[in-house]
Amino acid sequence: MRIALDAMGGDFAPLETVKGAIQALDELKGLTVVLVGKKEKIQEELEKYTYDKNRIEIYDAREIIEMTDDPMSAVRTKKDSSMNRMLELVKSGEVEASVSAGNTGALISASQLKLRRIKGVLRPAITTIFPSKKRDIVLMDVGANADCRPEFINQFATMGTLYYEEMFGVSNAKVGLLNIGTEEGKGNEITREAFHLLKSNDKINFIGNIESREMMDGEVDVIVADGFTGNMVLKTAEGTAKFIFSILKEEINKSTLGKIGALLLKPILKKLKGKLDSSEYGGALFLGINGISIKAHGNSTARGIKNALKVANKFAEDKFIDRLTEVMKQNQGGSDEA
Amino acid sequence: MRIALDAMGGDFAPLETVKGAIQALDELKGLTVVLVGKKEKIQEELEKYTYDKNRIEIYDAREIIEMTDDPMSAVRTKKDSSMNRMLELVKSGEVEASVSAGNTGALISASQLKLRRIKGVLRPAITTIFPSKKRDIVLMDVGANADCRPEFINQFATMGTLYYEEMFGVSNAKVGLLNIGTEEGKGNEITREAFHLLKSNDKINFIGNIESREMMDGEVDVIVADGFTGNMVLKTAEGTAKFIFSILKEEINKSTLGKIGALLLKPILKKLKGKLDSSEYGGALFLGINGISIKAHGNSTARGIKNALKVANKFAEDKFIDRLTEVMKQNQGGSDEA
Repeated sequence: MRIALDAMGGDFAPLETVKGAIQALDELKGLTVVLVGKKEKIQEELEKYTYDKNRIEIYDAREIIEMTDDPMSAVRTKKDSSMNRMLELVKSGEVEASVSAGNTGALISASQLKLRRIKGVLRPAITTIFPSKKRDIVLMDVGANADCRPEFINQFATMGTLYYEEMFGVSNAKVGLLNIGTEEGKGNEITREAFHLLKSNDKINFIGNIESREMMDGEVDVIVADGFTGNMVLKTAEGTAKFIFSILKEEINKSTLGKIGALLLKPILKKLKGKLDSSEYGGALFLGINGISIKAHGNSTARGIKNALKVANKFAEDKFIDRLTEVMKQNQGGSDEA
Repeated sequence: MRIALDAMGGDFAPLETVKGAIQALDELKGLTVVLVGKKEKIQEELEKYTYDKNRIEIYDAREIIEMTDDPMSAVRTKKDSSMNRMLELVKSGEVEASVSAGNTGALISASQLKLRRIKGVLRPAITTIFPSKKRDIVLMDVGANADCRPEFINQFATMGTLYYEEMFGVSNAKVGLLNIGTEEGKGNEITREAFHLLKSNDKINFIGNIESREMMDGEVDVIVADGFTGNMVLKTAEGTAKFIFSILKEEINKSTLGKIGALLLKPILKKLKGKLDSSEYGGALFLGINGISIKAHGNSTARGIKNALKVANKFAEDKFIDRLTEVMKQNQGGSDEA
């Protein structure tokens, strides 16, 4: 398996990206990584390690899309960026998958531009993984499409079901529609219409509306929403966790007993933080794109990059794109116009 | 000041509602509470206490709107419900304000039906109070209007500013638009349009978009959103906190050290939970309605009811509705049609 890695993408690139690639070689015996980016920078990092030289290649790209760049214009103007070049390698078939920890918006734009959508897919979606009291949850779309038609949401459910099976080996995933009430007829115009489409979608196991308050109870596997709502919920959960831990820390530091208590609870608090941190999964597939474009967290360390490469490898090995293409071919998705 | 209390509304009515009314008499010297509900039930509770008989009245109402009732139909069919009768007392001027811990949806419907909107108000909104690292935040609308036009959101900002001043004594509140990006132009169709209206609204101190991840940092005082998004964010925050505490508890119970640590942290965890619990504020005003209709938490104990009565008393004393009416009169809110 040959996978391209955006060596210059992410907060700790190329240090952690190169290190992650080296680590991945150990775990995936058939893997070759093509490191895309400034040749001299990559070589400088590679010199730190001993590794099988036949399994690491460098593809020179002279520009870098920064985390702060405007996505659309960066993709268009920085033609020789590591991200663009990486996706061109996927497009031409020189690699079977790609991983980037770079600018999310740019990766979405570039993936759509270079790889195009799978035939029949109205809109690609960004997925994220949430913890729950039972098994993991996939929430989508979390930001690719701020404005959604109900048909888009219905397709997310079909794609999400296949994705859940691929990620977690669980078929017939329970699909819920993110809404502000559980009964049919609740919500806004979009969710009310999406409910009807989901109800008659025979490719999914639709169990109805799910409220964000109950989301993490784990009764639903795949939760679909328009990209505005999905992104809002993701960021609210992050913000709430951040708030709770910051107040906890502040209060703990006020008293000696608190400090001792916190010391005893340290492993538990660490475990809890780990549970809330989705970087364990390495990365998320940009779903509906005609090629494997995996987004790793911007703050990925080597471990995150290695995990993202493993995810990319699995999707490629299992020919996920072919399977999704087959499913979407049978899908009466409606017109392709927004 | 005469305030009507829905004695039958809430999870612990009439036990806690009557108790809360008695407690409020001690703190508010000029207060008379009109307890609305089944006369014999209320009397049975009142017999437990010694109190100034001139300051507690009973207004008999033979029906009860249950927490599980369908709001609209309950309000229409249960004409002699304690909630309906309570609002009729506000309408006729026999009391200056009202408090209910009953069915939220029913209270919204009944308040609109009985008290009507303030002239010029396009849509009333439900407010909630969030904690933050700095001072408290008002978030609105959290569920009265699942589908909003941008003009509604712009009016929420005007009403919210006056409300914030009344609740917290802080004028010129910083208003933020809840969105999935901070820059102008981010978001969905509704937020993009609302941004422009808010920007040229000279009655507010608009500071731009605010992401839900940063919401609790406390840089913004009043956060406006459509009712679908506001409700979603409120429930996500509740769900995330619930999830964190439940995992924490589970992990703590697994080890002896964890149990000891938790014991030492108990006061801190209790304080944190208190910070996250908005019932401290007693209740939220249904904003834009032509009369004071305060919603107390469904699970209010006597303390919650007492606090809600205090909030109602303050709004009445300060002639908040007159002031809001005056502001909305000057407001070019657009047409009244949805």
